[in-house]
Amino acid sequence: MNHPAQLTELRRPLPDAFLASLRALFGDRFSTSQAMREHHGRDESSYDPMLPDAVVFAHSTEEVAAAVSLCNQYKVPLIPYGTGTSLEGHILALSGGLSIDLLQMNRVIAVHAQDLTVTVQPGVTRKQLNTEIKDTGLFFPIDPGADASIGGMTATRASGTNAVRYGTMRENVLGLTVVTAEGKIIKTGTRAKKSSAGYDLTRLFVGSEGTLGIITEVTLKLYPQPESISAAVCSFNDIASAVNTVIVTMQMGVPVARVEFLDENGVKAINKHDKLSLPEKPLLLFEFHGSEHGVKEQAEVVQEIAREHGAIGFEWATRPEDRSRLWQARHNAYFALLQLRPGCRAISTDCCVPISHLAEILLATKADCEQQQLIHSIIGHVGDGNFHVQMMVDPNDPDDIARAEGVNARMVERAIAMDGTCTGEHGVGLHKMDFLIQEHGEGAIDTMRSIKHALDPNNILNPGKVVRW
Amino acid sequence: MNHPAQLTELRRPLPDAFLASLRALFGDRFSTSQAMREHHGRDESSYDPMLPDAVVFAHSTEEVAAAVSLCNQYKVPLIPYGTGTSLEGHILALSGGLSIDLLQMNRVIAVHAQDLTVTVQPGVTRKQLNTEIKDTGLFFPIDPGADASIGGMTATRASGTNAVRYGTMRENVLGLTVVTAEGKIIKTGTRAKKSSAGYDLTRLFVGSEGTLGIITEVTLKLYPQPESISAAVCSFNDIASAVNTVIVTMQMGVPVARVEFLDENGVKAINKHDKLSLPEKPLLLFEFHGSEHGVKEQAEVVQEIAREHGAIGFEWATRPEDRSRLWQARHNAYFALLQLRPGCRAISTDCCVPISHLAEILLATKADCEQQQLIHSIIGHVGDGNFHVQMMVDPNDPDDIARAEGVNARMVERAIAMDGTCTGEHGVGLHKMDFLIQEHGEGAIDTMRSIKHALDPNNILNPGKVVRW
Repeated sequence: MNHPAQLTELRRPLPDAFLASLRALFGDRFSTSQAMREHHGRDESSYDPMLPDAVVFAHSTEEVAAAVSLCNQYKVPLIPYGTGTSLEGHILALSGGLSIDLLQMNRVIAVHAQDLTVTVQPGVTRKQLNTEIKDTGLFFPIDPGADASIGGMTATRASGTNAVRYGTMRENVLGLTVVTAEGKIIKTGTRAKKSSAGYDLTRLFVGSEGTLGIITEVTLKLYPQPESISAAVCSFNDIASAVNTVIVTMQMGVPVARVEFLDENGVKAINKHDKLSLPEKPLLLFEFHGSEHGVKEQAEVVQEIAREHGAIGFEWATRPEDRSRLWQARHNAYFALLQLRPGCRAISTDCCVPISHLAEILLATKADCEQQQLIHSIIGHVGDGNFHVQMMVDPNDPDDIARAEGVNARMVERAIAMDGTCTGEHGVGLHKMDFLIQEHGEGAIDTMRSIKHALDPNNILNPGKVVRW
Repeated sequence: MNHPAQLTELRRPLPDAFLASLRALFGDRFSTSQAMREHHGRDESSYDPMLPDAVVFAHSTEEVAAAVSLCNQYKVPLIPYGTGTSLEGHILALSGGLSIDLLQMNRVIAVHAQDLTVTVQPGVTRKQLNTEIKDTGLFFPIDPGADASIGGMTATRASGTNAVRYGTMRENVLGLTVVTAEGKIIKTGTRAKKSSAGYDLTRLFVGSEGTLGIITEVTLKLYPQPESISAAVCSFNDIASAVNTVIVTMQMGVPVARVEFLDENGVKAINKHDKLSLPEKPLLLFEFHGSEHGVKEQAEVVQEIAREHGAIGFEWATRPEDRSRLWQARHNAYFALLQLRPGCRAISTDCCVPISHLAEILLATKADCEQQQLIHSIIGHVGDGNFHVQMMVDPNDPDDIARAEGVNARMVERAIAMDGTCTGEHGVGLHKMDFLIQEHGEGAIDTMRSIKHALDPNNILNPGKVVRW
């Protein structure tokens, strides 16, 4: 997919003095090699790569501050880089500049088990974090699928399957250390669980996608590992019955930890990929966390609700291996889908709507995909009203891509008309900038732009993303 | 208590043309009467009143926008006003100007029961809201004690007793309609439960205390009314045992809905005021929400933990009338305490610390109060590490006030050293502006100030609060 031409206009060679200063600061952790630039110039979106001119690997907040100060002095664009798993073009170097790789800042700085908090460097990945804190009896629930870095998850306001119970990065970041555009180091919050102390800088930087500051430390909430976990799976003859089951479940206040939807195409794909034999119909996959009795009670309530909505089968999985098998299949869904069309690439959408509108938008979007003859599947974090349509396109066929983008645009319009959002968890990056205007209106975008101008007056922080200058 | 002198410098008479325009717009909902100005020039802090020059009662977002546009045109300070129950001087008219009373904007605009959301005008009070939505089976949990307006609660990032389970206004506001300093109307969010769509304007305006924009609509999350509720109360020989009981309860993941702490002075006061006979020792008061069995299980786990920490007695109250009696006593604590010293006024503090430090700060602060011979009590939303020291002072005795402020200042210093906050839920207003700098550091305050300058370039929105210009 190509970029709008005007966004490349800013690119110009980096000043020699700037490069020399970086080299002096970072030594062999500074690189302008083609391979290194290529690695840092792509994400998992379907955009073509756009390379930064140079890359540094930072080891401390102070090093980040020094690099940002240099960029500010020489007006060089900079982009923070984590695991490169973003989906909307967040880390593409539209106007070249410096990629600051934070993945080597991967230390768990402090676990405070009594307070249920942990402070980490931004390059810690979520799986690493959970491995390192396992013995405390606590865990960090946010699971966007990819083993993303905590810094990247914070910058994108990520969430995933567990959000229905545990919230998103918005709710789970307590405070940040941030390097501002001027290279100053600030702390946005404390470890207090709540606070009314001034403007909520923490939440402003969460989801700012590297455009307002560089996140160099993150303090997160942790949760007790549940005493008991069980999973259940059930199928429905139609999408509306599956969605209505979820609506009633939420209205009854059942504290489900996860509730995932797969359409019949998704089920077909994972059946094939994971050698399962699930009915090839709309499916709900639940996970329950709680006391042994609590988990049983939750599952019984949900089973009853599902039955009232015509569920076919309701299989429980309390044994860890059965649970793992089901959830592994769900996690593999993306790859399973890619195999539906060899050589394809998936374009993934990311709307989130008030749940009362969910069935309606799923059906309309499915009809649209079918009309456009797109191989597709819908997977949803339905407890939150968030879903992804994966459309399998030939990356070399502009018509294929245009039809998929057409489906996406119409779906976003529907979502916005339903008082929903163009992105539930993937972020804006490049891809959603126009949708953002549609969703918020020019007035709110102006407010966002005023903030961008105030905090990054030289437009050096990931320029050309989120809001236009 | 007096105001810093420099803050009154800006006061100047309002231009006649401005007043004439307001009168034309608001008719008999415009007033410059002394009584009306006095009503809008004080809150529940111990500050002396500071009166606005004029008051208007707005009935719509458009009227607010018109009033703000006029203020912007004539550079007149304006302050939004709700129930006047703020505690830190938020609504005092330091430099005169216009008070925009929003209490008549008190309509519940839309209840979306399936989506668990409600949209209200800012003058709806929390009790009114819960009365109006009762039949839906849903409720809004945030309970700061006072029957505050939703607009005011949003602007102060309020919380209260239920926050340990349901979060604060930060977590429970989905989106806002805001009038900007230029008089433009913007929407900051949708009804989607989660979103990664751009900068989190919602969270920026939540807690901004009228200094960044005027909130004219609030969309909130709702929750299913719990199937079952029970309460329990137990006493301890010392503060540390009570706090440790709470720490273990949180670490075990027991989803308590409320857990409140009262020191022995607080218990004495409510025993007297509510004719109870609770042991006059540190006390914990729990409330459990859930299924019938779930509530029983939670209470049993907590009872066991409390016993291991030497709890004296563990009384259950599952009958609504018993529960009400206990919680009514807790809610009356403020008034009960005032009766400990006839004619006094209470100075209330509002720190929040990581819970592992809670016992330490409570003991140090108690010792300080005793050394300063202040009649006092400590009441805490201890599940969150948030507590209030109420010091009963003679409002006409500067020495009394100075000693109480000294205790507060030393306590805030301790809280900040523990990575806690100077205000858990009351906000900054006038009173915490210096503490805010101590807590965040000049760098973060500069970032807040940049945002203030960007969004309110003429400094008309509640000037002199939160951050200095």
